[in-house]
Amino acid sequence: MSSHIMSAFDEELKYLNRRISEMGGLAEQMCADAVHALVNGDSALAQKVISDDVILDNAEREIQEKAIVTIAKRQPMAADLREIIGTLRIAADLERVGDLGKNNAKRVIAVQGTGVPRKLARGLEHLSELALVQLKEVLDVFANRSAQKAEAIRQRDEEIDAMYTSLFRELLTYMMEDPRNITTCTHLLFCAKNIERIGDHATNIAETIYYIATGAQPQGERPKDDSSNTLGAVVE
Amino acid sequence: MSSHIMSAFDEELKYLNRRISEMGGLAEQMCADAVHALVNGDSALAQKVISDDVILDNAEREIQEKAIVTIAKRQPMAADLREIIGTLRIAADLERVGDLGKNNAKRVIAVQGTGVPRKLARGLEHLSELALVQLKEVLDVFANRSAQKAEAIRQRDEEIDAMYTSLFRELLTYMMEDPRNITTCTHLLFCAKNIERIGDHATNIAETIYYIATGAQPQGERPKDDSSNTLGAVVE
Repeated sequence: MSSHIMSAFDEELKYLNRRISEMGGLAEQMCADAVHALVNGDSALAQKVISDDVILDNAEREIQEKAIVTIAKRQPMAADLREIIGTLRIAADLERVGDLGKNNAKRVIAVQGTGVPRKLARGLEHLSELALVQLKEVLDVFANRSAQKAEAIRQRDEEIDAMYTSLFRELLTYMMEDPRNITTCTHLLFCAKNIERIGDHATNIAETIYYIATGAQPQGERPKDDSSNTLGAVVE
Repeated sequence: MSSHIMSAFDEELKYLNRRISEMGGLAEQMCADAVHALVNGDSALAQKVISDDVILDNAEREIQEKAIVTIAKRQPMAADLREIIGTLRIAADLERVGDLGKNNAKRVIAVQGTGVPRKLARGLEHLSELALVQLKEVLDVFANRSAQKAEAIRQRDEEIDAMYTSLFRELLTYMMEDPRNITTCTHLLFCAKNIERIGDHATNIAETIYYIATGAQPQGERPKDDSSNTLGAVVE
């Protein structure tokens, strides 16, 4: 009887983990598509990203409902409980990643009049690649549960912040050179910020994996979201 | 024995609720201080906001740890379980509100060279007042647990979005009038966006309260985070 219950619990966990992987795959695809749509002025692709977000929102709700039923039914202790609470947190982060992709997709129409200058497009694509590699790796680590690897990913968020800061400077330069660039560049500034925040969510997920594996929060100030700090100096 | 356990559980819930109220009060104060520091170029106050954020981060961790211990020890069902899971979500939203206040505080140094034009300062203050009233009311509703009131707050986020859109237009106008305004106005754009996101987090909290009270997610598309949609048209 006890092993029967255990196995039902394991089945439920496995199901939640599979749904997290699916959410992660969709969120990644949405963010990649949004940047592609932005750079190529592809409003049909942008529209697809916007409608995909509904799927992601529903997936988060479903995971949440299933997780709560599992806790109530199985009454898990310690590591198992951490695992389910961690799943809820990761689902919330992935839902936010989808929102950021959707927000970028919505800006496609706003920048379509002028198009995105080639050099800025390359910068956005590069930033997006970095953030999506980060997200993909953290989802792989989630599948394997390695606290060490999660810690390494958490440290690497600085690279994305540095790249974001450099793109921020470039966008300001374009705006100063010609006021007609201001509207488009402002939207691209928000797109860049959204992508940087995708990296932050990957970092959140890495912290959650560390917590699931060890029961502790990672130690030390986290190197996140602080590019605005350096910007003060950079931008002067 | 059973009533003894019940009362220990109630004590733990009460403690968690008190900690949420404290987090809410601090997050509100930080956001108000950050805008005050921005408008008055008060870098000492900005520094205080930045250091207050550590208190908020620690409070979220403590709530999380306590909540999980409570679930493991008391094995709550249905409504009680929803209450604790809801508490975790609200703590995460308040932690993010603090991050947004901190991010605004960090921009004080960046805009200090030029100062904030009076009209834009008024706009930021007004937007901030709206968002903070929203946050304060939602925390009051949390104390009283009214699903109807939570739903009303959720609907009102549109007002903040409209105000944000108008401020966004004004900032773009300043930038186009004189390229020397670009750096400052870019930081103010991000500040305005951060404040708009505080309103989004208040809406998240309203949704969580609705969920705690009813066990269901609020129905219908939520009127949030979509100012970027209209911006496409507005900004053309």
